[in-house]
Amino acid sequence: MNERVKAFTDFRKRMNERILAEDNQVVRRFFALDAQTYKAGVLDLKTKEMLGLVASLVLRCDDCIAYHVAQCKEAGVEREAFFEVFSVGLVVGGSIVIPHLRRAVDFLDELEGGGAHAPPAHDAAHR
Amino acid sequence: MNERVKAFTDFRKRMNERILAEDNQVVRRFFALDAQTYKAGVLDLKTKEMLGLVASLVLRCDDCIAYHVAQCKEAGVEREAFFEVFSVGLVVGGSIVIPHLRRAVDFLDELEGGGAHAPPAHDAAHR
Amino acid sequence: MNERVKAFTDFRKRMNERILAEDNQVVRRFFALDAQTYKAGVLDLKTKEMLGLVASLVLRCDDCIAYHVAQCKEAGVEREAFFEVFSVGLVVGGSIVIPHLRRAVDFLDELEGGGAHAPPAHDAAHR
Amino acid sequence: MNERVKAFTDFRKRMNERILAEDNQVVRRFFALDAQTYKAGVLDLKTKEMLGLVASLVLRCDDCIAYHVAQCKEAGVEREAFFEVFSVGLVVGGSIVIPHLRRAVDFLDELEGGGAHAPPAHDAAHR
Amino acid sequence: MNERVKAFTDFRKRMNERILAEDNQVVRRFFALDAQTYKAGVLDLKTKEMLGLVASLVLRCDDCIAYHVAQCKEAGVEREAFFEVFSVGLVVGGSIVIPHLRRAVDFLDELEGGGAHAPPAHDAAHR
Amino acid sequence: MNERVKAFTDFRKRMNERILAEDNQVVRRFFALDAQTYKAGVLDLKTKEMLGLVASLVLRCDDCIAYHVAQCKEAGVEREAFFEVFSVGLVVGGSIVIPHLRRAVDFLDELEGGGAHAPPAHDAAHR
Repeated sequence: MNERVKAFTDFRKRMNERILAEDNQVVRRFFALDAQTYKAGVLDLKTKEMLGLVASLVLRCDDCIAYHVAQCKEAGVEREAFFEVFSVGLVVGGSIVIPHLRRAVDFLDELEGGGAHAPPAHDAAHR
Repeated sequence: MNERVKAFTDFRKRMNERILAEDNQVVRRFFALDAQTYKAGVLDLKTKEMLGLVASLVLRCDDCIAYHVAQCKEAGVEREAFFEVFSVGLVVGGSIVIPHLRRAVDFLDELEGGGAHAPPAHDAAHR
Repeated sequence: MNERVKAFTDFRKRMNERILAEDNQVVRRFFALDAQTYKAGVLDLKTKEMLGLVASLVLRCDDCIAYHVAQCKEAGVEREAFFEVFSVGLVVGGSIVIPHLRRAVDFLDELEGGGAHAPPAHDAAHR
Repeated sequence: MNERVKAFTDFRKRMNERILAEDNQVVRRFFALDAQTYKAGVLDLKTKEMLGLVASLVLRCDDCIAYHVAQCKEAGVEREAFFEVFSVGLVVGGSIVIPHLRRAVDFLDELEGGGAHAPPAHDAAHR
Repeated sequence: MNERVKAFTDFRKRMNERILAEDNQVVRRFFALDAQTYKAGVLDLKTKEMLGLVASLVLRCDDCIAYHVAQCKEAGVEREAFFEVFSVGLVVGGSIVIPHLRRAVDFLDELEGGGAHAPPAHDAAHR
Repeated sequence: MNERVKAFTDFRKRMNERILAEDNQVVRRFFALDAQTYKAGVLDLKTKEMLGLVASLVLRCDDCIAYHVAQCKEAGVEREAFFEVFSVGLVVGGSIVIPHLRRAVDFLDELEGGGAHAPPAHDAAHR
């Protein structure tokens, strides 16, 4: 795993533990519900993760986008399908989505072993 | 077709004509691009329409939701699948999505011939 | 209860029943969690409802605003306190909040037995 | 003045009076500041109103859009210029802006004496 | 004061000075109004700061969240109360709020002298 | 050109090339349409760029803000006019816009050869 992806993953993991260690049932249940949402139902995992990805794109949350890009990739979404999901997000959400699209593609490139050598600071920040 | 759905559809059609009659190439191309976005590619029409629906839900646009509910239905999305799309939209977008979910389900009921007798004013307003 | 408030309340109730009748556990659990969120904890009900109100204001959801205005009123929030909540929502969210503030105040007036004779259509639409 | 525009204007006026009658200095100052924002400076009134219009479009507030459409018209913005403002809003904000664009054009048509016979309910609701 | 919090605070201070040095009355008055909003009224400072925090959470602005977390802490909000504010923000705003919640809890930990060793880049970026 | 501006510009350029290299016509056409939007029409380039800037401000996208600040500057927008655009964005969008305003002014300062020595990490992240 590349260093930036690792830094992001580690921070995510550590903070989730901090949050779930807190005695607040609403927050804990929300986290459980969030996990349950993407389990295969009549829609398969792949479709649900693509739904999560497009929702994250139009709401413009880099962390959420990176997370669902990784989940989609693991579920077998191919590069061409990724770009069709991106195209829906772009047209629905507008040009304001473009900077997030750039980071999404950069992250996808990284997962695939390429990566565009983004400015080092930005990645830790957004993922 | 039920009266409220018809009023919504008519207004949509008439205004689209007004807009496209205007000599503004950017606006016209945007409308053409919007139509092109949902054409089947490596993802089929059904998946793309579900992507459009969840994006509309989290951005909370009743007109867009109603439009994609209708398109999804035509593409063969079943009630159980609709609710899985809704569940992703609800969890990603939060309780703020609930009023739109109510109107989405009411609209779906209507398309299926039921309908919850929503206050007459609201429907024309939101669709 | 005034007619418009009743129409809103009835639609809300009927659609919630439709939604919860559906066999989708994520949606049902979300609704349960939403109810649990506002139960008194270390913060009392009144404070939590004011938090729900200001969140609804800045996210500009008329239905949610009306709901939390009603809940706040029942929890004992006074008119002067309402306006302090509104002022936070207005300054954080900007002038784009103003139309929602108008409808919020109109709804509050109605609950108090006054009401500004808003255009009939709008109320059913937004509540 | 057409009936729908009048209903909208009356409600706006009455509620603004209700709000400003309240003894909350932050709210009052915000309203004063809002008015001051669009006064001519190094940018003229027309440009400032177009800025207000595009901001309202991408934030998707029908009331605010209608208000700034009316102000722009009074400041001398021509139909072709309106559509260029709309095109920026549409491209930046995405297809989610389209339903608001329809109502904006319908409202502009009305101000010009035409109007597309929108469903009666919707207008009072959104303006 | 920890280094990251200091970098954030310094940048904030310097830029506010740059902005207020500019001869633009609307901007200056807005800043003054913003400060006035959180002064104790019928609602005490603590409640108003919690309102500011939840509004910032659902609008997903890390800088604003960090600012109000600090203000809340100074006003005496305890960890358990913080998590109840967070729970309202999370349920109203949805899972899209989670990455901001992580950074909010990390910032709170830091203020309390702990801190999860977040990736260095992210903090300067978001606060 | 200052280092931070260069890092941002390089990343932007490289990722745009990656994205446009992909065989997705909707995405490519969207990028072409985005460029076309700001061409002079009945409104001149300067006005259109200011429209793009205020739209980016209220939608709170730092990358987009930085981009339009640079374009506006090139089109001849003066500092006083910038602050009038900022004032519209601030009043329409609310205090949630302030952190983005700080970064916008810092970026403008940089383009003018000054710059407030913002925390190094933040710039690459947001531009």
